Amino acid sequence: SDPSRPISAKVQELCVYEMNERDRGSPACLRLSQKTVNSLGDLVPLTNKIYSGDLKKRLGITAGLCVLIKNEPEKKGDRYEAIFSFYFGDYGHIAVQGAYLTYEDTYLAVTGGSGIFEGVYGQVKLHQIVFPVKLFYTFYLKGIPELPVELLCAPVPPSPEVAPSPAAQACEPGSAISNFTD
Amino acid sequence: SDPSRPISAKVQELCVYEMNERDRGSPACLRLSQKTVNSLGDLVPLTNKIYSGDLKKRLGITAGLCVLIKNEPEKKGDRYEAIFSFYFGDYGHIAVQGAYLTYEDTYLAVTGGSGIFEGVYGQVKLHQIVFPVKLFYTFYLKGIPELPVELLCAPVPPSPEVAPSPAAQACEPGSAISNFTD
Amino acid sequence: SDPSRPISAKVQELCVYEMNERDRGSPACLRLSQKTVNSLGDLVPLTNKIYSGDLKKRLGITAGLCVLIKNEPEKKGDRYEAIFSFYFGDYGHIAVQGAYLTYEDTYLAVTGGSGIFEGVYGQVKLHQIVFPVKLFYTFYLKGIPELPVELLCAPVPPSPEVAPSPAAQACEPGSAISNFTD
Repeated sequence: SDPSRPISAKVQELCVYEMNERDRGSPACLRLSQKTVNSLGDLVPLTNKIYSGDLKKRLGITAGLCVLIKNEPEKKGDRYEAIFSFYFGDYGHIAVQGAYLTYEDTYLAVTGGSGIFEGVYGQVKLHQIVFPVKLFYTFYLKGIPELPVELLCAPVPPSPEVAPSPAAQACEPGSAISNFTD
Repeated sequence: SDPSRPISAKVQELCVYEMNERDRGSPACLRLSQKTVNSLGDLVPLTNKIYSGDLKKRLGITAGLCVLIKNEPEKKGDRYEAIFSFYFGDYGHIAVQGAYLTYEDTYLAVTGGSGIFEGVYGQVKLHQIVFPVKLFYTFYLKGIPELPVELLCAPVPPSPEVAPSPAAQACEPGSAISNFTD
Repeated sequence: SDPSRPISAKVQELCVYEMNERDRGSPACLRLSQKTVNSLGDLVPLTNKIYSGDLKKRLGITAGLCVLIKNEPEKKGDRYEAIFSFYFGDYGHIAVQGAYLTYEDTYLAVTGGSGIFEGVYGQVKLHQIVFPVKLFYTFYLKGIPELPVELLCAPVPPSPEVAPSPAAQACEPGSAISNFTD
């Protein structure tokens, strides 16, 4: 990161929507356990689109792997260990690792980053809106300079109806960040 | 983490036992190499139970993936790249990555955490007691406030005979941490 | 890390060559997508050799996993999410995560380390020389004491012709670091 840009002393919040628009072949559910119910041994590579919290800008993608840990019938869901990254075009990326529970919010660890996120640490709250196609993340970031204004916005409150603006979905100029990851 | 709780200036040691009690379907050995000996291409998702160093409290689980890197016949063992997390109920989790050698102790990197472990870094010593069902970990943690007393205890020295207390194994109240991960 | 060795205030550069000498069975291309082109669902465990930037010393190996994210026909290449470590014998290891694009340089996050790399953070530039057998990495490391002189050297500029010295390739004494990882 630019040494002339001082590390922010405060925790910086960054809100991001993750949307599965069914056009990336994701998730790839690999039933390697060869069992009839979700079981340890199943692996789920994933890649979805990410939008700014106000849903007005396409940012990039998520990319990584979920390892199925346990099916929890009494909770009607599954526990995964999730190891993936968020890509923000020219800005760089953030790597995360932690639990993804299909039935409940979780906090994942921010393990590092590149570009403007070089040296980042902290955690991220994963809030599922519509399984498994609409999620809302709140990052609590430390160790980096102040985030660019373009990434900081008043988020649309999460609800099942939220959708990216048509311009953002079309990645129109002004509705996507520079060299948005795809 | 709570800003009123200052970051500890010293390295904090945290001892944890990992036990495979054969009731979680772990490990799931995926012989994707399709070779007759362990080979690059084999993957091993895993999830075991973790107990406090004094074996008096059930803490939670491990969850993640081992990637087989190399079979070492002269050492009668294997090298894995291990990417997994330790879950401590309401306290949060610690993510780690590094080598797991079935024939020798290793140090893995602590890559991040959530909850009371938000912002954590450092390393963890993996000591195998009985392959692959009984392991002892010593975390050397930095970047976090002082650990809760409940997690700090005089560990039982590792030996093949060690076992969790019956109350901890049964996850009885007082013998498991709050909302222990399972 | 040794508390008597102070953390370096400056970013430390560390250059490393990764060479696939076709003798480790790497990469293991697992076409789990069962598609005819590279697709999400494919996994690629990997382990190659690493040499010092001046190509005069064998250091160790890489070890980890690439998750195929997307085939990009217009770029004649692929996007992977790469989760792996660099092993430096007795010195320890560095864990990284980020994008590996077969057609373009990328920056990955340094997520942690062990040994002399305990507490490390920063990023690493991945520069591909000859796909997929010759790569050049420049680490930008923070959070650790000054690197040993043995690892700091004037790198040979990357080109398709570069090769480790015969003595380094043979891991001769003086041409390999102490207990180089293999």
